[in-house]
Amino acid sequence: METVLNYIKNNFSNYLEELKDYLKIKSISTLDEHKDDMQNCAKFVASKFESAGLENIKIFQTEKHPIVYADWLHQPNKPTILIYGHYDVQPVDPIELWKSNPFEPVIINKKIYARGANDNKGQNFVHIKSVEAFMKTKGTLPVNVKFLFEGEEEVGSTSLTKFIIENKKLLKCDALLISDTSMFAPNTPTITYGLRGLLYMEIEVTAANRDLHSGSFGGAVANPINELAKIISKLHDKNGKVTIPNFYKDVLPISKEEKENFKKLKFSDKNFAKELNVKELYGEKGFSTLERLWVRPTLDCNGIIGGFTEKGAKTVLPAKATAKISMRLVPNQDPKKLAKDFENYVKSISPNWVKVEVKMLHYGYPAMTSIDDPTIKAASNALKKAFKKDPVFTREGGSIPIIVDFMKQLKAPAILMGFGLDTDDIHSPNEHFRLENFEKGLLSSAYFINEMANI
Amino acid sequence: METVLNYIKNNFSNYLEELKDYLKIKSISTLDEHKDDMQNCAKFVASKFESAGLENIKIFQTEKHPIVYADWLHQPNKPTILIYGHYDVQPVDPIELWKSNPFEPVIINKKIYARGANDNKGQNFVHIKSVEAFMKTKGTLPVNVKFLFEGEEEVGSTSLTKFIIENKKLLKCDALLISDTSMFAPNTPTITYGLRGLLYMEIEVTAANRDLHSGSFGGAVANPINELAKIISKLHDKNGKVTIPNFYKDVLPISKEEKENFKKLKFSDKNFAKELNVKELYGEKGFSTLERLWVRPTLDCNGIIGGFTEKGAKTVLPAKATAKISMRLVPNQDPKKLAKDFENYVKSISPNWVKVEVKMLHYGYPAMTSIDDPTIKAASNALKKAFKKDPVFTREGGSIPIIVDFMKQLKAPAILMGFGLDTDDIHSPNEHFRLENFEKGLLSSAYFINEMANI
Repeated sequence: METVLNYIKNNFSNYLEELKDYLKIKSISTLDEHKDDMQNCAKFVASKFESAGLENIKIFQTEKHPIVYADWLHQPNKPTILIYGHYDVQPVDPIELWKSNPFEPVIINKKIYARGANDNKGQNFVHIKSVEAFMKTKGTLPVNVKFLFEGEEEVGSTSLTKFIIENKKLLKCDALLISDTSMFAPNTPTITYGLRGLLYMEIEVTAANRDLHSGSFGGAVANPINELAKIISKLHDKNGKVTIPNFYKDVLPISKEEKENFKKLKFSDKNFAKELNVKELYGEKGFSTLERLWVRPTLDCNGIIGGFTEKGAKTVLPAKATAKISMRLVPNQDPKKLAKDFENYVKSISPNWVKVEVKMLHYGYPAMTSIDDPTIKAASNALKKAFKKDPVFTREGGSIPIIVDFMKQLKAPAILMGFGLDTDDIHSPNEHFRLENFEKGLLSSAYFINEMANI
Repeated sequence: METVLNYIKNNFSNYLEELKDYLKIKSISTLDEHKDDMQNCAKFVASKFESAGLENIKIFQTEKHPIVYADWLHQPNKPTILIYGHYDVQPVDPIELWKSNPFEPVIINKKIYARGANDNKGQNFVHIKSVEAFMKTKGTLPVNVKFLFEGEEEVGSTSLTKFIIENKKLLKCDALLISDTSMFAPNTPTITYGLRGLLYMEIEVTAANRDLHSGSFGGAVANPINELAKIISKLHDKNGKVTIPNFYKDVLPISKEEKENFKKLKFSDKNFAKELNVKELYGEKGFSTLERLWVRPTLDCNGIIGGFTEKGAKTVLPAKATAKISMRLVPNQDPKKLAKDFENYVKSISPNWVKVEVKMLHYGYPAMTSIDDPTIKAASNALKKAFKKDPVFTREGGSIPIIVDFMKQLKAPAILMGFGLDTDDIHSPNEHFRLENFEKGLLSSAYFINEMANI
């Protein structure tokens, strides 16, 4: 192992330069104008697979963005790790709040700033490079590996979901390794065993057939913004509970052990509130912040627009208003069932004087892995060696819906070994990744590959 | 009079071409990028004053957009009419709903389409041309006239308000003539004797200090869109009444006579709803549609924005959300007092977990003129002659706050003689003005000038 680890340390600055090239590609999956960037990014990933010594590299075209596959399968008696990553990134708006160009990576104070620096290019790149380190020093790996990188994680992984079902044999594995979560705190190696699911809806409220003068028509006809606001205000009760019928019906209660575990993590509400610059945290009454984030479902407006939104005053009574609303789900909530409950509820509280349309944009199931799985033990050992510290076990508020599909279809445990921090501003302006965590990630990945040879 | 009227009829197509040139100028007062267009539009107005034979033409620069003045004062024993208009227009968004370029006027089915075609370029142009008709045919006018056109009507008339106070002598008059209202129905000459006032506010709700990942943070910290929606939903009760304390305190009750008058107008709720393509009209319970539009105050959201508003899905928990909210006021509500009541109320219903800022963008008092005034009689005679039909007397839902300032400062009655229709899509895409009403407006203006000589 020593040679592999030394190789990584000696090549760290080269890896960083290569990562910068990866980050320069504007692979925003949700915006049509970046379709070509998505293709270029897939080609870039394939080229990195090749230089790492992987084989059977293939770019699969899909209805949206390509899936990139590669493997190395020369240890028939050893386990196979399937390493998943996504090369697509979130949009960059509000662009005016970025201190540097989101697609011109810069290193400031030992952090690399760029869209995707953390989520997920920086995190998935460590696994390509740890494999490369084995291949360049030893010409072989102690286990079998398969890499599968997609370009639609930020828009619901539609193509990959289909791809997994159709390629179960190609993807067969003993463990799934994903680095797309956060560490609980700086320098705290973390294994995440639970993820929330997602249900993303859109509501459009239409009143009149055209924008109207708010003086000539105000008072006579409904205002779609006022009506949309009323609908949104009815989605929570005064205790912060979601009011959609059956919303909590399938939610697993928190176990005593888990409650204790979370308490041990010594999470400070006060510091958290201070860091976000809010006077008070807010959420469902009766639960701690970590419980609200990890084991309780939530409902948030992600966007709203209607009428005149530029500077100044326009006295318009708009024709329509739209809101994007997403719910984070926990085991065993079913997003497909809840999408219908949501639609029915919203329609039931909509008045006759407006037309209300409800649409599902995407969804993903929540997921959990058993903490007793031998692959989790291997991950624990690897992190301990890389960080020289015992890892903590957490759940995560975010969603990687595709992981559920992997687990369901491939019947393999998922190991969520994240190297990002919650303060890294993913999905926000000035996303960044600490170089220290990039390096620890490289070492952890190498150790994990080594540990997995002995399970 | 015959020669004046014939001159107008013979020159109608020339007037239309000149109006087109006026409409081509992108005089959007609320958008900074149109500052030069505003200057050009003021120069255009001044040039039309000159060719009409007016004197003492002056462009007054202000802190924002110029005021254009001209007069003709050679009838020392006759009354003086002050004719007010505004050359600024509303923004054009949503631009994608326009069937033609808003600044390339086109005539389709005897209507002229362009931003400002009705509000207010088309309507104010008739008075310049009726004066011109007198001057070209008779070389004189039967009364004295003063013209005062401003460029800030759509943004609160701030400069003109100051200008009136500082120039009372220059603007001294016996009657104020304004064509910036609607006719009650097609081919129904209308004198409007009441206007609603306006109070335009903005609410900004801020939660965390940055946009957050809705998975990693959702449930732990307040969502500004959800909170803004809650605030907006609390601005009306279940009967559609505004909940701001004291909101209705100073509202004048509707007189029996007025109630009867409105009933005579045979307004059809059913047709109105059909024309707007809504299943049901909506507003304050206990009042007819005309009452809600003309004599009752209202509150409408004019715009709302927050979070991700493009196509697709972004799982962001936004840092802030903003709404523009305006109230239409009726005699004797006081916008300045209500602005404070609004702010206090919004703050009182805002929770601790968000920061809420309330700002007043602009305001205007409501206004009424006595129906018994001799200038109203002159207007009534003029309209009867131009349309060959008795005029109706109505109030209007819209606001021309500056009229109140004129009335207060100059102590003169205001005659609101509008030639637009409520279906002309003012402030909306595809604003237009019927050529028929443009012509009737020209004739009515000429008749009014003539009638005013005998009061």
